[in-house]
Amino acid sequence: MQEFIQKLQDLIGIAHVLTDQQAMQPFLREWRGLFAGKAQAVVFPASTQEVSSIVKLCIAYAIPLIPQGGNTGLVGGQISELSNGVVLSLKRMNRVLDVDAQNNTLTVEAGATLHAVRAAAESADRLFPLSLASEGSCTIGGNIATNAGGTAVLAYGSMRASVLGLEVILPNGEILNIMSHLRKDNAGYDLKQLFIGSEGTLGIVTKAVLTLAPRPKAWAAAWCAVASPEAALILLKQMQNNFAQELTTFELMPKIGVEMVARHIPNAKTPLQNDSAWHVFIETSSSRSAAQITLMPELEQAITAAFDKNILQDAVLAHSEAQRVHFWHIRESFSEAQKHEGGSIKHDVSVAVAHIPAFIAEASAAVCALFEGARPVPFGHMGDGNIHFNISQPVISNTSDFLAQREAVNACVHALVRRYHGSIAAEHGVGRLKRALLAQTKYASAYALMQQLKQALDPQNTMNPHAVL
Amino acid sequence: MQEFIQKLQDLIGIAHVLTDQQAMQPFLREWRGLFAGKAQAVVFPASTQEVSSIVKLCIAYAIPLIPQGGNTGLVGGQISELSNGVVLSLKRMNRVLDVDAQNNTLTVEAGATLHAVRAAAESADRLFPLSLASEGSCTIGGNIATNAGGTAVLAYGSMRASVLGLEVILPNGEILNIMSHLRKDNAGYDLKQLFIGSEGTLGIVTKAVLTLAPRPKAWAAAWCAVASPEAALILLKQMQNNFAQELTTFELMPKIGVEMVARHIPNAKTPLQNDSAWHVFIETSSSRSAAQITLMPELEQAITAAFDKNILQDAVLAHSEAQRVHFWHIRESFSEAQKHEGGSIKHDVSVAVAHIPAFIAEASAAVCALFEGARPVPFGHMGDGNIHFNISQPVISNTSDFLAQREAVNACVHALVRRYHGSIAAEHGVGRLKRALLAQTKYASAYALMQQLKQALDPQNTMNPHAVL
Repeated sequence: MQEFIQKLQDLIGIAHVLTDQQAMQPFLREWRGLFAGKAQAVVFPASTQEVSSIVKLCIAYAIPLIPQGGNTGLVGGQISELSNGVVLSLKRMNRVLDVDAQNNTLTVEAGATLHAVRAAAESADRLFPLSLASEGSCTIGGNIATNAGGTAVLAYGSMRASVLGLEVILPNGEILNIMSHLRKDNAGYDLKQLFIGSEGTLGIVTKAVLTLAPRPKAWAAAWCAVASPEAALILLKQMQNNFAQELTTFELMPKIGVEMVARHIPNAKTPLQNDSAWHVFIETSSSRSAAQITLMPELEQAITAAFDKNILQDAVLAHSEAQRVHFWHIRESFSEAQKHEGGSIKHDVSVAVAHIPAFIAEASAAVCALFEGARPVPFGHMGDGNIHFNISQPVISNTSDFLAQREAVNACVHALVRRYHGSIAAEHGVGRLKRALLAQTKYASAYALMQQLKQALDPQNTMNPHAVL
Repeated sequence: MQEFIQKLQDLIGIAHVLTDQQAMQPFLREWRGLFAGKAQAVVFPASTQEVSSIVKLCIAYAIPLIPQGGNTGLVGGQISELSNGVVLSLKRMNRVLDVDAQNNTLTVEAGATLHAVRAAAESADRLFPLSLASEGSCTIGGNIATNAGGTAVLAYGSMRASVLGLEVILPNGEILNIMSHLRKDNAGYDLKQLFIGSEGTLGIVTKAVLTLAPRPKAWAAAWCAVASPEAALILLKQMQNNFAQELTTFELMPKIGVEMVARHIPNAKTPLQNDSAWHVFIETSSSRSAAQITLMPELEQAITAAFDKNILQDAVLAHSEAQRVHFWHIRESFSEAQKHEGGSIKHDVSVAVAHIPAFIAEASAAVCALFEGARPVPFGHMGDGNIHFNISQPVISNTSDFLAQREAVNACVHALVRRYHGSIAAEHGVGRLKRALLAQTKYASAYALMQQLKQALDPQNTMNPHAVL
């Protein structure tokens, strides 16, 4: 193996090949500690050509290659668990190459952070709509490989919707150039779709052309209390009817979760005192010129109408930018707050939007029947059917007793997801965490076709083996 | 072969297997007469199971299978040119199975017409946004197979953006069930993307789950005269800045084309008398409640502002629904009108939006240098970069002399498209017409990957052979 490492060093320079266990740790460890990584090297190529050469070398030596962006993934897709594995970090390929306000496109290397891309778009008075809590660390390449979601999917779609073109290193080491700037192109198969969301198992994204949205000129936000997810669903329909695609955020949260945030997170007081069991955070935004004057009064009017119809129990509008930011702060502190409440068991699932109330009710009842006192904290992106079905341990229970039931709780929730024809991996992907689950839950014909694609593109199984499939 | 036909008849009934040359004609002929089809049979299965059985039978007998929807395709993708070929028409599988206004989804068999789907959506107070002149004949399966475009792509995207789930018969005859109703799902590869736009070469779409948009509550339309495509581009940016995603139509047309329409099409008088060389048809629409009051005055104001800034020379707003329909009538009569002007040579291309003016100027000059007196009529969807670069023969020339130059004209226009990194098949696909051109114009690595996918899924080359690849 010394020969292999030597050749890696020859290819990209000794300074860019880590082999020391200590030095490799930040690239081997998953941030929540769910996966303990192993590898023989972490490499940092600086160019497309270098990535291509590394792939070819790995094929020649039959070495598994694990592409890594910001190492923020939640399902271990970026973690090498093989002691002979090579982690390929795109960190050094982080340039924003071009921002074109005429074409509304941005060209970028895969290792650029989401934050850098959003900032570059903003400096050209445009919006790059993908928004994630990890934007400072996560990379565009990782966002593409995982088809990242986040809070803006309702209005702008997932990452897939923002990709026009890609440069990909195929599992045979060849460079695939499909760096299109076009908005309409039916010249053959749309190859980029293969790589978006395939979690580095079919190739390594090295560059991308992204499409930019107009920058919103106005925002309006409201925090509402509703009696139930059923009421929230009616409110959602009402708001969509009023605001169509300008309803850009509709987040459902249980009161218990908002209280956890208030308890543990600094400066995160609940915006309203109300006994209702559920809260909804609504944001409308628009890049129409006229919206600068009308957006706020229109939201106020819609909220008042919903109140008059008894759809919502109480509501407060953000009357300042600080207050709007405060609403976001509460919503984005959910995961952090739950950590302070002991053990939790999480599920990243989706069902058809109209099934959310029934799903939450059934799943909550089933989980509580399984483990007395368990506290379901289902929250998330109601507008696109994605619920983070998280469960906190009972208040007066032993954490390890609770976590020992993880498998049983997972089985119970995922069985229900299947009954609703939902997804067991709505947003965070499959990675290594849900690999077995994917095999169990997909229709055989669909799973077989995935395997067939993997086999066709990567017959040696070099690219991120043991992820997804 | 009699044995094969016999087995087909056994599978789906003798009444649903055409073998008579006369009776098969409507399914063999391409409507513009560009392809003279041949086949041994045209079959009309009534169910997913029947399609699966037919595919398996064709594999066993090594018979090429050509799926067909409404036979409206413009590049011959739906035409069998092989005397042993079997055309599989989805005509009998034309039911709208479900319209769910809560989930904003519609479930449909592939043979339903686009018109039937739009009508079903409308009856549930929803919009199915795809809009094509051929909506009465073209089918949803064909729309999916060709990733159909049309005039609403600017606001709603191509067909791909409206598909949530599919049922596909794979080239091995197996049924792939990926009939998802979900808006967010990262559980493995997004398999549906493979089949959308692959023109029946990787499988036969038999069912689909489509996503519906809210039905617009208001429309406003204007017909404008501008000095040049450069001015039209400035106008586009201005309108996008004003209306964002509510700018749903922005069609560029040369005056010469509008005059052809006025000359040959009944009730299609030019909306404005002006010497400007270019016209633009703008439509805004919105499903926001408030838009019912504000949309029209806002468009009027934006048009006035553009006039004051000398971006446009003249404009007329549609002050009645009849007038708005009249604008659409003119725009949609372009192809028909050109037929009355003698021979024409057409190109369905796209470039980056900002390159449209330069592309039109260069391509027009090049074509006129090649054939004196040739009359370029470039028109189309400026907002998404798709220009139908059509050229009418000179007024005082022989049609066959002009058409004899087709190859040279094509080569000249497509060379320019390549220089602009554009697409030689932006909207209508590749089919049989542009198969050789695709091979010439794609990067080798992209073309090879397409071949690899085809080989992996359809090693016997049963599915629509000689289309696309």
